[in-house]
Amino acid sequence: MRFSATALAVAALAAAGAVDAVKVNPLPAPQQIQWGTSGAKKIALGPGSLQTPGAKGANKDVVYSAFSRVVKTVNKVRWVPAAIEAPIPKFESFPGTDAPAALERREDLRRGNPGKATGSPVTTATIKVADWSADLQLGVDESYSLSIGKDSNALEITAPTVWGALHALTTFQQLVILEDGQLVVEQPVHIVDKPNYPHRGVMLDSGRNFLSVQKLKEQLDAMALTKLNVLHWHLDDTQSWPLQLKTYPQMTKDAYSAREQYSRDDVKDLVSYARKRAIRLIPEIDMPGHSAAGWQQIDPTIVTCQNSWWSNDNWPLHTAVQPNPGQLDILNDKTYTHVEKVYKEVGEMFADNIFHVGGDELQTGCFNFSSSIREWFAADASRTYADLAQYWVDKALPIFKAENNTAGKKRELMMWEDIVLSADIPAKQVPTDVIIQSWNSPANIKTLTSKGYRTVVSNNEFLYLDCGNGGYVSNDPRYNDQTNPDPTGATFSFNYGGPGGSWCAPFKTWQRIYSFDFAANLTESEAALVIGTTAPLWGEQIDDTVIAGKLWPRAAALGELVWSGNKDPKTGLKRLTQLTQRISNFREYLVALGIAAAPIMPKFCIQHPHACDLYYNQTAVV
Amino acid sequence: MRFSATALAVAALAAAGAVDAVKVNPLPAPQQIQWGTSGAKKIALGPGSLQTPGAKGANKDVVYSAFSRVVKTVNKVRWVPAAIEAPIPKFESFPGTDAPAALERREDLRRGNPGKATGSPVTTATIKVADWSADLQLGVDESYSLSIGKDSNALEITAPTVWGALHALTTFQQLVILEDGQLVVEQPVHIVDKPNYPHRGVMLDSGRNFLSVQKLKEQLDAMALTKLNVLHWHLDDTQSWPLQLKTYPQMTKDAYSAREQYSRDDVKDLVSYARKRAIRLIPEIDMPGHSAAGWQQIDPTIVTCQNSWWSNDNWPLHTAVQPNPGQLDILNDKTYTHVEKVYKEVGEMFADNIFHVGGDELQTGCFNFSSSIREWFAADASRTYADLAQYWVDKALPIFKAENNTAGKKRELMMWEDIVLSADIPAKQVPTDVIIQSWNSPANIKTLTSKGYRTVVSNNEFLYLDCGNGGYVSNDPRYNDQTNPDPTGATFSFNYGGPGGSWCAPFKTWQRIYSFDFAANLTESEAALVIGTTAPLWGEQIDDTVIAGKLWPRAAALGELVWSGNKDPKTGLKRLTQLTQRISNFREYLVALGIAAAPIMPKFCIQHPHACDLYYNQTAVV
Repeated sequence: MRFSATALAVAALAAAGAVDAVKVNPLPAPQQIQWGTSGAKKIALGPGSLQTPGAKGANKDVVYSAFSRVVKTVNKVRWVPAAIEAPIPKFESFPGTDAPAALERREDLRRGNPGKATGSPVTTATIKVADWSADLQLGVDESYSLSIGKDSNALEITAPTVWGALHALTTFQQLVILEDGQLVVEQPVHIVDKPNYPHRGVMLDSGRNFLSVQKLKEQLDAMALTKLNVLHWHLDDTQSWPLQLKTYPQMTKDAYSAREQYSRDDVKDLVSYARKRAIRLIPEIDMPGHSAAGWQQIDPTIVTCQNSWWSNDNWPLHTAVQPNPGQLDILNDKTYTHVEKVYKEVGEMFADNIFHVGGDELQTGCFNFSSSIREWFAADASRTYADLAQYWVDKALPIFKAENNTAGKKRELMMWEDIVLSADIPAKQVPTDVIIQSWNSPANIKTLTSKGYRTVVSNNEFLYLDCGNGGYVSNDPRYNDQTNPDPTGATFSFNYGGPGGSWCAPFKTWQRIYSFDFAANLTESEAALVIGTTAPLWGEQIDDTVIAGKLWPRAAALGELVWSGNKDPKTGLKRLTQLTQRISNFREYLVALGIAAAPIMPKFCIQHPHACDLYYNQTAVV
Repeated sequence: MRFSATALAVAALAAAGAVDAVKVNPLPAPQQIQWGTSGAKKIALGPGSLQTPGAKGANKDVVYSAFSRVVKTVNKVRWVPAAIEAPIPKFESFPGTDAPAALERREDLRRGNPGKATGSPVTTATIKVADWSADLQLGVDESYSLSIGKDSNALEITAPTVWGALHALTTFQQLVILEDGQLVVEQPVHIVDKPNYPHRGVMLDSGRNFLSVQKLKEQLDAMALTKLNVLHWHLDDTQSWPLQLKTYPQMTKDAYSAREQYSRDDVKDLVSYARKRAIRLIPEIDMPGHSAAGWQQIDPTIVTCQNSWWSNDNWPLHTAVQPNPGQLDILNDKTYTHVEKVYKEVGEMFADNIFHVGGDELQTGCFNFSSSIREWFAADASRTYADLAQYWVDKALPIFKAENNTAGKKRELMMWEDIVLSADIPAKQVPTDVIIQSWNSPANIKTLTSKGYRTVVSNNEFLYLDCGNGGYVSNDPRYNDQTNPDPTGATFSFNYGGPGGSWCAPFKTWQRIYSFDFAANLTESEAALVIGTTAPLWGEQIDDTVIAGKLWPRAAALGELVWSGNKDPKTGLKRLTQLTQRISNFREYLVALGIAAAPIMPKFCIQHPHACDLYYNQTAVV
């Protein structure tokens, strides 16, 4: 394998010493980037410039379409960097203290830069891939190298797989800027790059509110640019079932409307669209909790408590942690008949080897609405809710696994950590071949990996993108405080500095996300089981109208965190101040592409690097 | 004045007893609405259906264009109510407890309703206005009555002024729905309506980030529908000066770009656009604090500390509460020369009698950068910063007032409460003819009105729409907590249930806004000085991309709060549960109009009235 050499080359390359000399600052930061000093290279690539020696099979088209997309975009956007890295300036000294010189206004940034391209233009692109047939699945080699040599007229990309080559192209796309009316790369450049983690995801939720295919594609476009490679799709929930199935067409009676549904063709289209951008789609059908819509249209007796009051106001009788209630009846044999058929058909729609089968937030009160469950407990006083959860694991997981074998796939299962760690209803034994997604305390990451589970980190304290937006339940008297109980502001309460109705408040900023040391305190073997992270954007207050601004640019901070990390490879310190300009520039870039990423600070701040820092000390975050 | 009779009619009308029988639920709720029972009336109005006996002058066109807009919109949107009022349903009883019947799924809502229109269709509209010349200014009579009689073919609107007539039309617009393929009003209806407060505003900020004319117009469209009648436009701030002036064209050197500026024609266009929708534009030039951009291009010596480090990290040396610093030099005579000219030209661009001249957040540290201020304090040890603020008040306010007289206007001034109440730098005496805007503690509302100031309420604990979105400053080590200091969750800290970088966290939900009893604890004479409220949406993290979702539907809760209040006129209790369906429907309506209002809950909740309430008890909020 000649490409194993790239790993060595990474180590051999000098760290990104000359990077400050150029304006571009691609996101995520590549592992290694080395700039020349011989001047800008004009980029004159067209759709026909691509050469792919040895290319074959379906993936060849993937590379050609990606290249064509990049060429089209750089020519359309004609990007002038909106924010560039610079040291913090000196400011006028406070009278009676000292600190020389004045704040420079960055006029150059606002005018664009009048640099001249020299040397031979880049007129060809060569993409060499070692294995054209490697499938896009968990763990596929995503590394690449990219070179634009001083005396070369070629963009040269090498990668073990097409998926690495696609990442090379999104890096290249961010290197091309407009200077003096010409598209250029600022200097000869050599990049060697690979991700720190194989699973880099965001989770979107079409169960609480519908998300259109068009808006999902828009998010996939932005994900590809940040090298996020997994869209975990929480397809349904108790509230709605938007997915059309041949087996049970009646399930979409619980879609919100005829328009708010996904056809089989829609899903096929999305899987293909994502794959062309090196993104895997992992479907989630959350079972046996969070289940009512759709299922109750097959047979209302396989669902428990769907007609109950969720009863958060009377906690001993609560049947759900949010409206509306509903769980599959674990002791009803018909449940498994229908689950199997739904699992089979949904599985056939998706190409990924991983299928997420939920397993979170089972509520004991809800199961009380099933007479068979009540009788089962009455028949043997030693039975616990953990036994009930184990019954689900023992019966459902073999069905899922058998189905996977039938389909000739090597499918694996993913579940939420509750099935292992819930305080109320943990199963006693869950096979360690199930990948577990951790969303509660960060301490659970160690607990899960020490038990031998491959773990995806989705911690709510750092990565829940829906937090801090207030509550989504109505008739809530808690908002009615008229006076701050602590006018000193020393302590926080519901309406005063506190959560304000959002259980996972506060809002997770790009800085919070980037600061997450999710693999801290793990042994080497535990750390090896962390396969990556997924940032969930739960959908109670999300739909087409606001999704782009909620995801972006924050998910880009996650993209870099799991691709090349949050630390400067030279100093080992957190590189939050470097990220500031990178993510500010990237946000403006998304807006230029028509994606409504939210502003994170006044534009003054991005036009004046570090003027809006909280600390003058650039190593305040360590 | 025959229209003074409407005030009596309001009291005489029965309270909205039959309102539950119909689906429409206009927002804000009218003061009095009486439905007939004789069946739906088909609406067959065209642009030529309007009669306006006695109409004259420029305001006639305002009414005709508003009518034409309504006719066009109802025919285009063909609205089917997305959420309707209904009692909370019964749910299946928790095993071992009692509570009969099952949750109904609201199939009718999702299918649309097959009702039939009967009786004579409405083919004409008559708008009778008593005073066609009344100008749109603070306190103009905005009352109206609206009738569609059982045997009438006319929509009949009467109002003292065209501005009341415009409000009647936005009410009518929300009454028209699609049933059985026809546009109808569900029953004969009679409405008598008027606002509780004359000043009902939102504040937008084009100083921190630019807002395009197009997006401002979109917000004006939505404001008109909720009868919000003031756009307080915080035009500039230290960060940027987007307004082109003839007097000082150099000021827009501190606009963010050539594109991110307002021409004089843009402003004229916006003033006219707003006026056609019964909305006043109040300009704010914030002085002498929050001043750097623009001013420094006229003469850098009239600004202090603009080149200093804002120094929040070293509080004794701080020069601003946010980056970037800058205040007008109060002791520099040239300051007043330039302030006068800027005030004059901006004043000429706007039609409103009120001009906001700022006055908030003066920082002592910033003034230390002025040698003349340092010398002034050195010359007399008895001088205080309050004396300095008084110097500004004594010198600047007469200039503003003289200018108003010169222009032949009856202009009044508005200022932030800091100029009266600041802990650091309050002026000693501010004339009570200045309208004061209160944004700190709600207790200040009483303090200000007891001092005799007309007061606009913009309290940050209820009405700041930008809160809860994390911080807008970079290099912030506070996000770096890796462990919750209180894992019990009993107390909140920065990253755990606490503010997360937003000084005015949490996010203010529609329920929080609506719950605000801002006139509580006031004497009658104090209450009479509260002229209304303004909800500010400060712009550090707002621009075109996210503004609609941040404003809407939350500002609609404010619209109702200040129009007809938050209490049921029958019971005197808060009517939050009624608002739920009203605001949910209104949010969907805005989306149908192309305005990206944010979802406030899963769509399940709006299809199932009260299923997502926190409390089953519908009078939990009192």
